[in-house]
Amino acid sequence: MIQCAFYLTPDGELLEQLGIEQIKGFLATGEGLLWVDMEAVTDEDAESLSNVFRFHPLAVEDCISKDIHPPKIDDFDDYLFIIVHGINYHIESEVVETTELAIFLGKNYLVTSHDVPMRSVSSMLDRIRKDGRLMRRGADFLAHDLIDALVDNIMPTIEEMDEKNDQLEVEALHEPKRETLMLIMQLKRSILALTRVILPQREIVNRLSRGEYALISERAQIYYRNIYDHLVRIEMLTLGLRDMTESVLSTYLSSVSNRMNEVMKVLTLIATIFIPLTFVAGIYGMNFANMPELEWRYGYFGILIVMAVIGISLAVYFKRRRWL
Amino acid sequence: MIQCAFYLTPDGELLEQLGIEQIKGFLATGEGLLWVDMEAVTDEDAESLSNVFRFHPLAVEDCISKDIHPPKIDDFDDYLFIIVHGINYHIESEVVETTELAIFLGKNYLVTSHDVPMRSVSSMLDRIRKDGRLMRRGADFLAHDLIDALVDNIMPTIEEMDEKNDQLEVEALHEPKRETLMLIMQLKRSILALTRVILPQREIVNRLSRGEYALISERAQIYYRNIYDHLVRIEMLTLGLRDMTESVLSTYLSSVSNRMNEVMKVLTLIATIFIPLTFVAGIYGMNFANMPELEWRYGYFGILIVMAVIGISLAVYFKRRRWL
Amino acid sequence: MIQCAFYLTPDGELLEQLGIEQIKGFLATGEGLLWVDMEAVTDEDAESLSNVFRFHPLAVEDCISKDIHPPKIDDFDDYLFIIVHGINYHIESEVVETTELAIFLGKNYLVTSHDVPMRSVSSMLDRIRKDGRLMRRGADFLAHDLIDALVDNIMPTIEEMDEKNDQLEVEALHEPKRETLMLIMQLKRSILALTRVILPQREIVNRLSRGEYALISERAQIYYRNIYDHLVRIEMLTLGLRDMTESVLSTYLSSVSNRMNEVMKVLTLIATIFIPLTFVAGIYGMNFANMPELEWRYGYFGILIVMAVIGISLAVYFKRRRWL
Amino acid sequence: MIQCAFYLTPDGELLEQLGIEQIKGFLATGEGLLWVDMEAVTDEDAESLSNVFRFHPLAVEDCISKDIHPPKIDDFDDYLFIIVHGINYHIESEVVETTELAIFLGKNYLVTSHDVPMRSVSSMLDRIRKDGRLMRRGADFLAHDLIDALVDNIMPTIEEMDEKNDQLEVEALHEPKRETLMLIMQLKRSILALTRVILPQREIVNRLSRGEYALISERAQIYYRNIYDHLVRIEMLTLGLRDMTESVLSTYLSSVSNRMNEVMKVLTLIATIFIPLTFVAGIYGMNFANMPELEWRYGYFGILIVMAVIGISLAVYFKRRRWL
Amino acid sequence: MIQCAFYLTPDGELLEQLGIEQIKGFLATGEGLLWVDMEAVTDEDAESLSNVFRFHPLAVEDCISKDIHPPKIDDFDDYLFIIVHGINYHIESEVVETTELAIFLGKNYLVTSHDVPMRSVSSMLDRIRKDGRLMRRGADFLAHDLIDALVDNIMPTIEEMDEKNDQLEVEALHEPKRETLMLIMQLKRSILALTRVILPQREIVNRLSRGEYALISERAQIYYRNIYDHLVRIEMLTLGLRDMTESVLSTYLSSVSNRMNEVMKVLTLIATIFIPLTFVAGIYGMNFANMPELEWRYGYFGILIVMAVIGISLAVYFKRRRWL
Repeated sequence: MIQCAFYLTPDGELLEQLGIEQIKGFLATGEGLLWVDMEAVTDEDAESLSNVFRFHPLAVEDCISKDIHPPKIDDFDDYLFIIVHGINYHIESEVVETTELAIFLGKNYLVTSHDVPMRSVSSMLDRIRKDGRLMRRGADFLAHDLIDALVDNIMPTIEEMDEKNDQLEVEALHEPKRETLMLIMQLKRSILALTRVILPQREIVNRLSRGEYALISERAQIYYRNIYDHLVRIEMLTLGLRDMTESVLSTYLSSVSNRMNEVMKVLTLIATIFIPLTFVAGIYGMNFANMPELEWRYGYFGILIVMAVIGISLAVYFKRRRWL
Repeated sequence: MIQCAFYLTPDGELLEQLGIEQIKGFLATGEGLLWVDMEAVTDEDAESLSNVFRFHPLAVEDCISKDIHPPKIDDFDDYLFIIVHGINYHIESEVVETTELAIFLGKNYLVTSHDVPMRSVSSMLDRIRKDGRLMRRGADFLAHDLIDALVDNIMPTIEEMDEKNDQLEVEALHEPKRETLMLIMQLKRSILALTRVILPQREIVNRLSRGEYALISERAQIYYRNIYDHLVRIEMLTLGLRDMTESVLSTYLSSVSNRMNEVMKVLTLIATIFIPLTFVAGIYGMNFANMPELEWRYGYFGILIVMAVIGISLAVYFKRRRWL
Repeated sequence: MIQCAFYLTPDGELLEQLGIEQIKGFLATGEGLLWVDMEAVTDEDAESLSNVFRFHPLAVEDCISKDIHPPKIDDFDDYLFIIVHGINYHIESEVVETTELAIFLGKNYLVTSHDVPMRSVSSMLDRIRKDGRLMRRGADFLAHDLIDALVDNIMPTIEEMDEKNDQLEVEALHEPKRETLMLIMQLKRSILALTRVILPQREIVNRLSRGEYALISERAQIYYRNIYDHLVRIEMLTLGLRDMTESVLSTYLSSVSNRMNEVMKVLTLIATIFIPLTFVAGIYGMNFANMPELEWRYGYFGILIVMAVIGISLAVYFKRRRWL
Repeated sequence: MIQCAFYLTPDGELLEQLGIEQIKGFLATGEGLLWVDMEAVTDEDAESLSNVFRFHPLAVEDCISKDIHPPKIDDFDDYLFIIVHGINYHIESEVVETTELAIFLGKNYLVTSHDVPMRSVSSMLDRIRKDGRLMRRGADFLAHDLIDALVDNIMPTIEEMDEKNDQLEVEALHEPKRETLMLIMQLKRSILALTRVILPQREIVNRLSRGEYALISERAQIYYRNIYDHLVRIEMLTLGLRDMTESVLSTYLSSVSNRMNEVMKVLTLIATIFIPLTFVAGIYGMNFANMPELEWRYGYFGILIVMAVIGISLAVYFKRRRWL
Repeated sequence: MIQCAFYLTPDGELLEQLGIEQIKGFLATGEGLLWVDMEAVTDEDAESLSNVFRFHPLAVEDCISKDIHPPKIDDFDDYLFIIVHGINYHIESEVVETTELAIFLGKNYLVTSHDVPMRSVSSMLDRIRKDGRLMRRGADFLAHDLIDALVDNIMPTIEEMDEKNDQLEVEALHEPKRETLMLIMQLKRSILALTRVILPQREIVNRLSRGEYALISERAQIYYRNIYDHLVRIEMLTLGLRDMTESVLSTYLSSVSNRMNEVMKVLTLIATIFIPLTFVAGIYGMNFANMPELEWRYGYFGILIVMAVIGISLAVYFKRRRWL
């Protein structure tokens, strides 16, 4: 479904709400800049695309299919077909969900396609509606702006993960619950997934900034290089985050085992103090006919004192050896 | 054994059930497209092959031998010898079993060879029987279609593994049994095996799509590039799956140790509550002549209350410290 | 904010406290060497920069933004834009904090920019104030001196980490506390962070020393190579440090588990010695009418001796098997 | 010591038992093919070699010394000096022992040298004795045959390791003994050692098959490529084996800890059931003057029933919670 | 301090004990070969060096400073500046200590510099004193001989580590002490350090053997290649050693935990046997008025037998289940 189509005339006028025929007309002139954004492309749209832009059927198929495609650039001489991944911000899920943006970058047109609404695209559309001059710099710059917005949207996700990690660390340290482990593991997995999104993307942007493609002007390359730097920074942050999560996991495990050990130690200490005392009581519970202590006047009180002394000595001894 | 042989004449007519002599004749003309599919090649078949196609003896030997050969491309100028691996879908085993497809890709012929029946090959044969025009695009496209079908058959296996992993996670969390561990380990091993099948394959397809070989036309290269993208996606999924299995393994181990710890803790707590009580009972079981408490009217009931107080206090204390 | 601006005239005279207009003038002559150092660049400063030096807006933006940028070199033909990271020495934090130095290296000028005061820069400024001839060797050497000072400032941090590691090892061995684990983990993380600062830096300096850029004279390249060697040495030290920290962590874990085991073993031994004795006492506490031992004259003393023998034998046995 | 020397004349006649002078004569003609095999080369042999073939002293030294040399190819223009490693099959040791084969590959001669008897070499010698035509295809093919036999001899070792691994898995699962761990560790080490033998070898053979050396004819290269494929397959098998051993190790560790836990749990359960019962018995062992239950007619039997109820309830409870 | 200076005249005469002026003279002639060895270079020596050889100040500074410099080659056209690391054999420390040898390799001179006495250098000096012809082959061969001796000195260290590892394995298996763990960890660290010394060295020697530098003659390159092979072998041995140490560490940990478990199991078994017996004794220690068994004539003896039966049955049961 064609969601939106802009055309900036060579005179700087911005036209919107174009029909297929108009688009065909503008393309034929070879001047100005045309941007067509499509959402949830259907087979019908695909046919129109083929008629108007003569895109390669394989590239069109990638737009239609709901599968995830790895980030890539295919060079079809007249146009580049670029797939980049973003993290859609209004999806509040625990796992990292990637959204896919397919870009056809031609000399004087840009065709974008995505399955779900994308914040980075819609905000760009709004900004152009307000000021058509944003399209003045050409198709390569327009593609840059889109990819830049996509990459910028990754940062808040990383910050959220960072916060969650801190919160999990506190929890792991002070009240390690089974649930905490699940959350740590989930976070770890999310970070790994994020890493896998960023890494190939970096390579794509690197190639765009290297002058490998004639459609990216030298002036634009510096700007693509800037996105590349952002991705490198994001990668550094992600790696740091991964170390932190590893460390939280260790904290959790050591915290749990520590707690368990503490409990077992205290319990065993209590048993250890009372077992010898019970033995002493057992001795004077024997029924021998001739047990002189039993007849002593203060035998009972004496033995109580002896027991107290034994018990307290053991407790003090354990305390001193830092066992308690 | 020659399982099937098709010949598409330059006029678009499809011939089937060809004899060796006919094949020889068609090859000599250098026109049309010939596809010969063989299953479980014997030494005899090998001799026929040598007579007709003049393949290199080493390549023919690779077809005859039942060993597993790593995926590869050998360029013999007149033809390419390609080995790719698939996962045969009708084999329902717990371990990943790879099936091997050997392809001789010539200018106007395709010879395929496999040891066991392969779903991707047989479905292709059926489709051609119905519509001979599928062979119209040439040998390179025919080879593409076969490899594409092979790669597509990997996806269901990954999905099955994913499901099994989810099911094992639930089991690991709620009733970790020794058996569960075995299954997790098996799954982990299967995923590693799968990774090793996909990785070299990706390289093979990459080389086919790069214009390295004259026999692959430029038009076909884009289609090979498409298979390459599929393999990259499969690799991403496999890596994600590996992380998940690692996480399930951790869940299992932590689940088992947690359960054990819980049991030991409760048992030790019970002992810890009763040991001091037994000591108190031991005291009043001593036979000292002079033990005033024994003569008190409510001494017995008093001591029972004291014991109850001690027991309950300990239990409450343990409860409060979250030990119970 | 322009913090400092030096101009060394071709005659070897050093001018300071220059205004924007003067700077413009000197630049126009194309002779002598100009160094402008700026701290916490504002949008206003940025505008001046653009007017005077005609730097690329993206590079200027990198100076203004407070974000961390990965180390890099951007070649804008007329000048190089270099970002290097240092570890500011007067920050006494437990985590490694990197400070960023942005350098514009032109033919006859050097513009440096940083967000916070940097020891390496200020000491350089002081040295030039005392002896202007330090600027005689040109902009490439001046940039070298700054980067060299930056790298030299990393060494003390490594030494501090080394010391802390040794101290933690002693603590881990003799009094492993929960806190110790936290500190080890923190140190480990710091070292990983440090590694990530050094690695890309090394690549930057390597490229500067390789004759890749026309603005770095051949004479200066050898000096950049020297910084490269320092970075390689620092990397080797960091790797060694990482091994040591791993080893301290193992020591800690084994130390804690050892201690716990010792405690449990001793406690269990005590219980094991007294439980059989209590059983013996229990036997003679039974109330059977016919228990001949009870009537023996020295039965009681005999049984005390028997108990002592049993207890001592067990203790000796445990001692011999090295269990105690 | 020259163990064997063959000379195939240009007329297809096979000469054996050649003296040094004869060898010199044949070499001078530059026709036919000469193969000299030497075992346990002495300094004397070395001198002869130098006189006849004019090999580089360093290569000769590598043949004399008993040290292990990494696999390599040295190109001395007139001849290649190749070192490859095999696993000698008649050595039945638990650790992987590599045997070294040094090959001097000239235009019309092959000189091989090894310290110990090698199965692959001696079987080759036997086959040539029976049929001299095996040497017809030239020195490069002869070297290929030797290296091929060497590589083929690795397979049985891998199969043996595989079997041993399976057997260890059963043992680890059903009767994990200390010895089992030792054997698993040994196997793991052997596999690592094997990997280290195969990896550099693969590189060597790859270079021989790439047309890098003029002495290897284009026809022979395809055959070297075949060995390369074998080595890749062996590497895949070795990697799979490594995963399996890792898994057996995990099985062992989990099996041992499981067993231990089971024992401790049962023991603790027994204690937990009897400790409360002993406490009850302790209560009625107290000597209070006023304990009404003691006077009841069926007090004793009543209390026995109470105890049985408590004991059985506890056992049932534990059973239900799957603790027993 | 100039430790030694040799000059081999073109006529094959060896001069020793040369003064600075003489050295200058010989250099001027451009003939013969000069070797100057220096130990613990001071600033003064540095000045002389600058005067005579005109070395780059940075290279000279590397000789003076006591820091560790990574192995490297700097090409200053007229001469190469090489830093290689050795392991000085007469240092008997537990940690691997590297010694540094700086080599200035000119067309007709060699200047070596080291901070501490080095066995490889001094033995070379001795050999030349005895036979000056060792210098006949030129500066590149002389440098080769030195580096070769340095590398050969690494072998004994590896053998010592190997022996220590075997000894630690026995200790880990039969009497694992806390100290053993420390030693294993130390060994592991030493091996890692050794690996880091060898790896960059290999690269250096590889570059010397590749014909990258005009000062290394083609004839000498083969000899450098030989050193390279030695380093590869050493690396293989080091990797094998690392695996062995890992395995010893596992042995230690499993040995310790095994021992602990055995102790706890035996102790718990003892307790488990006596706790039910004590309960039985407790029953007959109760003071009920009506307890018929107490009145039986052989009640006491009967109950002793019952207890013995219970105790023995339990022991037999535990024995059978292999718990004891």
